[in-house]
Amino acid sequence: MNIYTVVMAGGSGTRFWPASRRARPKQLLALTGKRSLLQQTVARMAPLVGPERVLVVTGAGHAQAVADQLPQVPGEQILAEPVARNTAAAVGLAALWVARRDPRALCLVLPADHLITDETLFLETLGRAARAAMDEDVLVTLGLTPRFAATGFGYIETGQVVDEASPQVSAVAAFHEKPGLATAQAYLEGGRHLWNSGMFAWRAEVLLKELARHQPALAAGLERLAPALDGPGLAQALAEVYPGLPAVSVDHGVLEKTGNLRVVKADFGWSDVGSWDAMAELWPADEAGNARQQGRVLAIESQDNVVSAGNRLTALLGVSGLVAVVTDDVLLILPRERCQEVRKVIEALQTEGLHDLL
Amino acid sequence: MNIYTVVMAGGSGTRFWPASRRARPKQLLALTGKRSLLQQTVARMAPLVGPERVLVVTGAGHAQAVADQLPQVPGEQILAEPVARNTAAAVGLAALWVARRDPRALCLVLPADHLITDETLFLETLGRAARAAMDEDVLVTLGLTPRFAATGFGYIETGQVVDEASPQVSAVAAFHEKPGLATAQAYLEGGRHLWNSGMFAWRAEVLLKELARHQPALAAGLERLAPALDGPGLAQALAEVYPGLPAVSVDHGVLEKTGNLRVVKADFGWSDVGSWDAMAELWPADEAGNARQQGRVLAIESQDNVVSAGNRLTALLGVSGLVAVVTDDVLLILPRERCQEVRKVIEALQTEGLHDLL
Repeated sequence: MNIYTVVMAGGSGTRFWPASRRARPKQLLALTGKRSLLQQTVARMAPLVGPERVLVVTGAGHAQAVADQLPQVPGEQILAEPVARNTAAAVGLAALWVARRDPRALCLVLPADHLITDETLFLETLGRAARAAMDEDVLVTLGLTPRFAATGFGYIETGQVVDEASPQVSAVAAFHEKPGLATAQAYLEGGRHLWNSGMFAWRAEVLLKELARHQPALAAGLERLAPALDGPGLAQALAEVYPGLPAVSVDHGVLEKTGNLRVVKADFGWSDVGSWDAMAELWPADEAGNARQQGRVLAIESQDNVVSAGNRLTALLGVSGLVAVVTDDVLLILPRERCQEVRKVIEALQTEGLHDLL
Repeated sequence: MNIYTVVMAGGSGTRFWPASRRARPKQLLALTGKRSLLQQTVARMAPLVGPERVLVVTGAGHAQAVADQLPQVPGEQILAEPVARNTAAAVGLAALWVARRDPRALCLVLPADHLITDETLFLETLGRAARAAMDEDVLVTLGLTPRFAATGFGYIETGQVVDEASPQVSAVAAFHEKPGLATAQAYLEGGRHLWNSGMFAWRAEVLLKELARHQPALAAGLERLAPALDGPGLAQALAEVYPGLPAVSVDHGVLEKTGNLRVVKADFGWSDVGSWDAMAELWPADEAGNARQQGRVLAIESQDNVVSAGNRLTALLGVSGLVAVVTDDVLLILPRERCQEVRKVIEALQTEGLHDLL
């Protein structure tokens, strides 16, 4: 049985500006430790899937950087999207690529920009998802047990357990958009709702069949790529076909429409590394909660700050709840609770014509 | 008539840490423009006193840096104190040096770490002080017209105007220590109190005579240096004599004790460049009052911040009243109103053994 890891590395987020830039999105950054989130994602899978069966879907502008970071992955397995067309197109492209080699092969689809702290439990859970996907020929999504009443994630409401011997595997009762705080609290207490993780398992042919049913235009478009998939004409074919593909997420475009779906409950430590603020939990911190990526923080009457300043000593006196980031060309300071507004800075840079800093 | 500029460059302050370090005190920093405060001090005097008659008194640890910054000043005119012994010793040493060449020569004594914005008025005022010092053989101190109710400066209370033709020159009624706010407010409104500037004019022999009268131990100690003043043995003589000198300020030790004193009212734009906070007035600022030393600030819902971050772009979102300083090895953030507490950081660095950063 063939298993492929499909790494979804299409992100171009701005929430880690100024560390992230157009040419260096979050998944390519070493935000925790010395390896990038992308490198960690591939390395984490090594016990289950070797690099020879890793497929990376990324933006054309990042393909070279991805290749540089993953020298162990064959170059033809880095699929470069000429334009972003959301996740249904990306997983479809990957499934098409896999299906030409083995239609029954399993795809384990993983975002390139998440952090997982319990790797053993992660692999065990993925194994469970893989078995469910193969035993029943279903689509499988991983749902994370909520740790708090998050309002920033979508939720999956679990249905009936399919097999009492595998209580972690359920049917899906419903998908829910990002909730308000009261609803999120109710989800947390109710115990039937899981965070939508963006991690999936399915046989290539099963995904393609579901795509054909629920996203026929997308499936037809992808089908036009099939003849070019193994040859030197792939980039040209992608450039012709991709811009015309519907841009829809696999969750919204397929998973929410099919009954042929299972959710596997996941409890490994996980973070979507969503913003500088989130690093407070992921970076080492002093007793007053001042977290730093590296270097050292000397905090006097200062609490709960998040600092990325290279190897500098950061001296804080009488400041709390701030994010401070220093790069070679930028100093950024803002309150932690406003991290989502970094995009306002990006917009201002665009307005000011400071394109070098984007 | 010979006029010497005596530049008092003994400061070792820490209030501009991390830009200032033990080896690079404030007067050696280019805090405004491209030249250091020391260089600006000497350049400002050029129309009145050329570099061949500039004398700099500085700490031995800074003498080489001073010489590097002032190549136009003859090396033997940089007097290196082996230990700091406050200003009475420093001005006494300089007066002794000048007196060997010309006892009647005038010393214009200027701190190396102040900023003056109206240089024409400054030179005019110094000329007036010089004439008063020479005409009457008195000590002359410059008193600055207060611009606000400052509690961080000492005050000089003016007495009778000596000559109605020179209404800016008065006797001194009293010296006052740093006042409380209410007193400072009263001083400001009363119009008879001036900020003590640390700028003086006197003939070398007049200062030495006053020192002998009011600080006989200091004067006797300095006298032991006289034979070595012109020769290669000066450093050795200073090392032997200086540690034993009384450490007293010329204000407290001489000016407050003598009746042989005039104060000249000064109105040139002046700043003692006392802390990062003070730079808000001295650096270019945007409409929201965000001042930066250089580079560019992009401020979104952010007011009244003071930033020194080299040529970086500084992006501020939702923060106000902060000081942020980036150097190669340090990031410092604190509220502007706590700038005087930078010394707490210095103390912590000492406690932590981080001597490289001091």
